Amino acid sequence: MNANPQFLNTAAHVDEAAVKSLPNSRKVYIEGSRPDIRVPMREISQSDTPAGMGHEKNPPIFVYDTSGPYTDPNVKIDIRSGLAPLRQKWIEERNDTVVMDGPSSQYGKERLADPKLASLRFNLHRKPRIAKPGMNVSQMHYARKGIITPEMEYIAIRENQKCEGLIALLTKQHPGHNFGASIPKAITPEFVRDEVARGRAIIPMNINHPEIEPMIIGRNFLVKINANIGNSALSSGIQEEVEKMTWSIRWGGDTVMDLSTGKHIHETREWIMRNSPVPIGTVPIYQALEKVDGKAEELTWEIYRDTLIEQCEQGVDYFTVHAGVRLPYIPMTAKRMTGIVSRGGSIMAKWCLAHHKESFLYTHFEDICELLKQYDVSFSLGDGLRPGSIYDANDEAQLAELATLGELTQVAWKHDVQTMIEGPGHVPMHMIKENMDLQLKICHEAPFYTLGPLTTDIAPGYDHITSAIGAAMIGWYGTAMLCYVTPKEHLGLPDKNDVKDGIMAYKIAAHAADLAKGHPGAQIRDNALSKARFEFRWDDQFNLGLDPDKAKEFHDETLPQDGAKLAHFCSMCGPHFCSMKITQDVRDYAAKQGLEEKDALQKGMEQKSIEFVKKGAEVYHKV
Amino acid sequence: MNANPQFLNTAAHVDEAAVKSLPNSRKVYIEGSRPDIRVPMREISQSDTPAGMGHEKNPPIFVYDTSGPYTDPNVKIDIRSGLAPLRQKWIEERNDTVVMDGPSSQYGKERLADPKLASLRFNLHRKPRIAKPGMNVSQMHYARKGIITPEMEYIAIRENQKCEGLIALLTKQHPGHNFGASIPKAITPEFVRDEVARGRAIIPMNINHPEIEPMIIGRNFLVKINANIGNSALSSGIQEEVEKMTWSIRWGGDTVMDLSTGKHIHETREWIMRNSPVPIGTVPIYQALEKVDGKAEELTWEIYRDTLIEQCEQGVDYFTVHAGVRLPYIPMTAKRMTGIVSRGGSIMAKWCLAHHKESFLYTHFEDICELLKQYDVSFSLGDGLRPGSIYDANDEAQLAELATLGELTQVAWKHDVQTMIEGPGHVPMHMIKENMDLQLKICHEAPFYTLGPLTTDIAPGYDHITSAIGAAMIGWYGTAMLCYVTPKEHLGLPDKNDVKDGIMAYKIAAHAADLAKGHPGAQIRDNALSKARFEFRWDDQFNLGLDPDKAKEFHDETLPQDGAKLAHFCSMCGPHFCSMKITQDVRDYAAKQGLEEKDALQKGMEQKSIEFVKKGAEVYHKV
Repeated sequence: MNANPQFLNTAAHVDEAAVKSLPNSRKVYIEGSRPDIRVPMREISQSDTPAGMGHEKNPPIFVYDTSGPYTDPNVKIDIRSGLAPLRQKWIEERNDTVVMDGPSSQYGKERLADPKLASLRFNLHRKPRIAKPGMNVSQMHYARKGIITPEMEYIAIRENQKCEGLIALLTKQHPGHNFGASIPKAITPEFVRDEVARGRAIIPMNINHPEIEPMIIGRNFLVKINANIGNSALSSGIQEEVEKMTWSIRWGGDTVMDLSTGKHIHETREWIMRNSPVPIGTVPIYQALEKVDGKAEELTWEIYRDTLIEQCEQGVDYFTVHAGVRLPYIPMTAKRMTGIVSRGGSIMAKWCLAHHKESFLYTHFEDICELLKQYDVSFSLGDGLRPGSIYDANDEAQLAELATLGELTQVAWKHDVQTMIEGPGHVPMHMIKENMDLQLKICHEAPFYTLGPLTTDIAPGYDHITSAIGAAMIGWYGTAMLCYVTPKEHLGLPDKNDVKDGIMAYKIAAHAADLAKGHPGAQIRDNALSKARFEFRWDDQFNLGLDPDKAKEFHDETLPQDGAKLAHFCSMCGPHFCSMKITQDVRDYAAKQGLEEKDALQKGMEQKSIEFVKKGAEVYHKV
Repeated sequence: MNANPQFLNTAAHVDEAAVKSLPNSRKVYIEGSRPDIRVPMREISQSDTPAGMGHEKNPPIFVYDTSGPYTDPNVKIDIRSGLAPLRQKWIEERNDTVVMDGPSSQYGKERLADPKLASLRFNLHRKPRIAKPGMNVSQMHYARKGIITPEMEYIAIRENQKCEGLIALLTKQHPGHNFGASIPKAITPEFVRDEVARGRAIIPMNINHPEIEPMIIGRNFLVKINANIGNSALSSGIQEEVEKMTWSIRWGGDTVMDLSTGKHIHETREWIMRNSPVPIGTVPIYQALEKVDGKAEELTWEIYRDTLIEQCEQGVDYFTVHAGVRLPYIPMTAKRMTGIVSRGGSIMAKWCLAHHKESFLYTHFEDICELLKQYDVSFSLGDGLRPGSIYDANDEAQLAELATLGELTQVAWKHDVQTMIEGPGHVPMHMIKENMDLQLKICHEAPFYTLGPLTTDIAPGYDHITSAIGAAMIGWYGTAMLCYVTPKEHLGLPDKNDVKDGIMAYKIAAHAADLAKGHPGAQIRDNALSKARFEFRWDDQFNLGLDPDKAKEFHDETLPQDGAKLAHFCSMCGPHFCSMKITQDVRDYAAKQGLEEKDALQKGMEQKSIEFVKKGAEVYHKV
């Protein structure tokens, strides 16, 4: 039965721009130990090296693929039906959960019973699932019992880029060079299990979000990025938010936080959840505040608890909980330049002041743990007192809260609840490493998840860049996931273009961090792209990049002809000046001398100089 | 006499967008020890703090201003006449130069005599100047003789941001806090002289470029940025290049390199020089190559020398000279992923191979020094063997060249020729510090001037960001000037939008580096902007930023009404959720308890909680 022909049957549609394949790319799946472990990757094919440069075959490059079934031409996408529940069988097999009759949260029941909402409601046929009484269904719980779940195996395959082909080729081309740094160390399922058991990594994955493609957040894995979406009271609708989600994952968002604060938070989230192959995070206090009409002082533990249950049953994978904003820390923010800039933090500060009581998030923390472990929702312990300006960086309030987050991490771990820690904020470069080191020490190596940090305050409109600098550095130092900042930060709600700009800046930061950390295989894509650049394979250069569309568009602005894609120059340098072309001449020449022995090469140069000049030192090779 | 009514009298015009004042800004001049030392700064005025937040006066903020007379409404700009020669008197007073009859370079004479070029020629009335025989007119020479030039005094004033007003205010607002980090240490004229004498800083400033507003490049001063402009054989004309220059300096370019490789290099440069208040750098080998129709093997020392003289007489302030690309190093690049990516480097490599001879730039290096010291042209020793990919970073070829640059630095210093060193390129984050440390050591602390470095190769279309990350870090570690990279890098010739995007990314990197280095006064602008943000002074927040236009445009996309500029929220969070607003409530409350004593504050909280609730915990204050 479909209650809303306008919306569900006609208006709701998938964003076509978000589902077409990227150029020269195809979705491939790598099968694990059982046929239903099928790990997606994007294969980017390359053209051959031009004849004048050796005419060799260039192997396809495989890259981590967050885009989900949307870019699989064999999957029929219908956002009114949602994605297939690929984890369902794994969850069922564990035999530690039960299916409920329907939502048990008070609010969830009310929304379901409200006929006025029928037109907005996702047509969900599945009932919520919960752990059997006394059971703990968190991946950390399994990990600590020594169990390797299918999710863990999936992740191990996903984190191991398949790149032996290129390495073999490069080694052949450059004998004597050490490509060892690029050869993936084995990330085994057992390693994944061990990292989760130790609390050094989390697998955010609610049992009510079976549509998810498992992924991991931890500093011994690829650095991940999060994209924030969500409407506010002033703008954006359900369709738009679903589009932002599919758009985010197309360009590389590893998780998405739905930070909606406007109308229909519940219904918006359901649409996002059912169509998302990546973990979804929320800040439940935002919705709780809507339930009390924005009056922070009227919040209660009961309303908040009901909100948690509502969202657990919908399938939210991680919750930001600002339980570290304790009453005694609030006065520490009074002397700040910018006070409390975390929305959740300021709500709780207001509640604490209004009641002059300790935060109910702190006093009820174990109750929250009891809930979360029944659904495998992970904690993202919020940094409610993060600095909002360079002036406030690494101050007393921030560090006091961090100490509490460390204490709460151990409480969560006592319940085998997966936990990561949120971090700042605005921090000048010379204070970033101190932040990271303190977090690792104080929070017992729980994964760090930072917003930027922004390294200066003076560039509103460009905070994706001020913060990508800090993000790259803190990622290198050990942050496991980077929360993106868009160019609209501080100024307004990001639209789709801003979302893409934010993602791009953060994919760059995360990848730069992976390179600096020496993550197995990270450099393969750089090497392939650089080789394509050197060989003037323009299309390959575009396609191997993070944003093939933009690279091609920029190139075509000045040289739109197809012929230019084969030319040995771009408009930046013109035909005489392309240094890559000139150096190719040098290299061709040197190659004929044999690469093995530099001395031999040098010795042979004199004889060859005449030949070189005779050749005319041609700037063009025939392609 | 005006030879070209079409171009000189009508077509050539100043770009209106580049000359209007920035919002709420006015040009002020700070006078030095003599009335003709007038150092420009941009004064940004601020509105008062809203009544509900204390109604205090916010002092104007003074920022370093590279935009020259273009943003001074009292100066009539006519690009056909060029800028006023403000240094002329200082140069004349030193009585160590003579005015020549006209250009002495063969090429300069030919161009001047060619009637076909009349229509393109800048209508220059001034004759070139040169040192008297046996004299050395470099600022380093004066510095080493203990002379403090007016240029040095000018720079000392310019580097000392005038900010005592704000600091006094902040100290009053936040008693007990240490604003000492923000209080400018004195950068005295003597300090400037000493840094130049030691070779740790350069003042690039040809005696034939009297239009310049003196500036300094050295790691104990503000980090500077360079913008590259210049046409190629495929695009862009004179008018367009002059516009790119004025556009670059409007947004903060400290120097501009004219890298033209297309037609009319000589004439284009003259227009740029005569209209530029910032130092202009070039790579003379580009023009020399044009003179031999792009055939590198036909280059000769004589052609190159004539090109140097031609450009010295026009007033170019620094030359990139790739004298470190020595014959024995070329084979070291054969095994690279991307060979030689510096255009100048690849030209010289080709020449060396074609002749199997040592580079004439290296063998004639002392001859070059003899020339440069007669005009006070600075060296920018080119990194012709910089890595063009992550794979090639910090390799044998790069480090071999660096050793030669260190050797040449000492040769240049023997002649009192000011010298900086160019640096990479493509370098992953974990190898950046090593680069900087090696440069300081090997090149005896001569200023480092780096392109980026790019921290990954995988984002064509976004290399302003991949490189801003590296630039910020290397700036912090000690690089004195950062050469910008635009989004078009590797793809095409940047247009005006790309120039601005490149400048913005690099202003951010340079400022983040200044903050991290603790440069005197750098944080004042961050603090002022953050305070404006906290107090919801939206217009001040826009105006204090690097790009007021964009910040305002972004904000207005969702909240265009003027009323919204006073509202306590933006569309990102909506009225209930603006954390800055909520925290203001918290702070007002805490402030009433007295800020001095945290304990007293805490004690008083309980009594005040009732009052707080009574107040309604209003989300809005009346403005």
